[in-house]
Amino acid sequence: MPSIAQIKHLASLRMSKYRQKYGQFVVEGRKQVEEVFHSGWEIEGIWGTPAFAERFSPAYDFEWMTEEENKKCSGFDTPPGVMALVRMPKMKELDLLEPFVLALDGISDPGNMGTIIRLADWYGLTQILASEDCVDVYNAKCLSATMGSFLRVEVVYSKLHPAAAGRRVYGAFLDGTSVHGMKMESPSMLIIGSESHGIRPEAESLVTEKITIPGKGHAESLNAGIATAILLDNLLR
Amino acid sequence: MPSIAQIKHLASLRMSKYRQKYGQFVVEGRKQVEEVFHSGWEIEGIWGTPAFAERFSPAYDFEWMTEEENKKCSGFDTPPGVMALVRMPKMKELDLLEPFVLALDGISDPGNMGTIIRLADWYGLTQILASEDCVDVYNAKCLSATMGSFLRVEVVYSKLHPAAAGRRVYGAFLDGTSVHGMKMESPSMLIIGSESHGIRPEAESLVTEKITIPGKGHAESLNAGIATAILLDNLLR
Repeated sequence: MPSIAQIKHLASLRMSKYRQKYGQFVVEGRKQVEEVFHSGWEIEGIWGTPAFAERFSPAYDFEWMTEEENKKCSGFDTPPGVMALVRMPKMKELDLLEPFVLALDGISDPGNMGTIIRLADWYGLTQILASEDCVDVYNAKCLSATMGSFLRVEVVYSKLHPAAAGRRVYGAFLDGTSVHGMKMESPSMLIIGSESHGIRPEAESLVTEKITIPGKGHAESLNAGIATAILLDNLLR
Repeated sequence: MPSIAQIKHLASLRMSKYRQKYGQFVVEGRKQVEEVFHSGWEIEGIWGTPAFAERFSPAYDFEWMTEEENKKCSGFDTPPGVMALVRMPKMKELDLLEPFVLALDGISDPGNMGTIIRLADWYGLTQILASEDCVDVYNAKCLSATMGSFLRVEVVYSKLHPAAAGRRVYGAFLDGTSVHGMKMESPSMLIIGSESHGIRPEAESLVTEKITIPGKGHAESLNAGIATAILLDNLLR
């Protein structure tokens, strides 16, 4: 059973500042804990509730935790019953030799961030460049939305402009050129804006190719995850 | 101010069975309430908190509601401060003359359902066919994810097979033909499976064209909303 101090520590890691302070984060849920267990990432503890253990009989060692304790430190309203304390890997720099960079400008919704990480993994990208005010990857909802892809796609938080140098920079706007039939010319970069602010002026100044997703209906916009999906499917085919 | 009975009634509409019983649902949030207000749909009441009114000074009439009352009947952990009680429109039948039908098989996540409705609106579809066990559109999280598109795209809950008759039926599988360069041949139908079960056997038996979204990385799958986006962008271009 975790001590009261451990529960408090796990609960504190729901906040980005404590994750940064301790260099640790929490992974929750059967599939994700199993993936992180097999990943070689440094795990500092796994806790499971009796209900979880009975339902899934996991193949890894874990300590017991009551439902109540789980609720106290989970990042979810309905905790999935298993959580792992994981050491954060050291952040690498962006590999500027990559022909294509996916760059995020102020993405604040953890679900969108997680979805974009999963998409990047689908399209074989191993890094994402994120402006420093993007939501923290190690947020519980973001990790969950990645479906384990956070283990394979590294998010590098940094200013966007240094990586734009010498690249064709694509950005989606309502009045751009259709992305259909457009071929990604390397070296290039695709900037994704946030749902609330789109691509902000500073990032817009980097854009060399304004592109758009052709639609026929009345929706005013698409969410950031959806737009990323359609743009990557077109540019990286 | 709403009466205690009204609060109870609004709160009860968080559950699908009461929405069906009373033929009403609740729309929350500044933008969505404004859109529904201008839509011509039958509104039976609007309530706003003082904090909401101060921040946004809405152009429509509403009754006051305290933060506490709002919390008691909102479908969100963090209520947006304004809610409208709306009469459910009468469900129409699926228009079988449409050249293209988007069909959902067991989509249970309200966020995915809302995203798909918004996408359908983007691509100019006015109806979606949903298997009877799909999540209810009038769920608060689903409505919110549609960003108002629920006003323009009708979801018809019904069995999928009658609409498949005489159509080419596309379904996404991991081992299908690449959707890139594929042209939608009408009359046709696209079936989207759920995240947890994919396209189930009964729906799979309707599929005449197994298609796939080509990826290069290690993610095992894409979520239902993302897959719908990429498939519609390819088939309906």
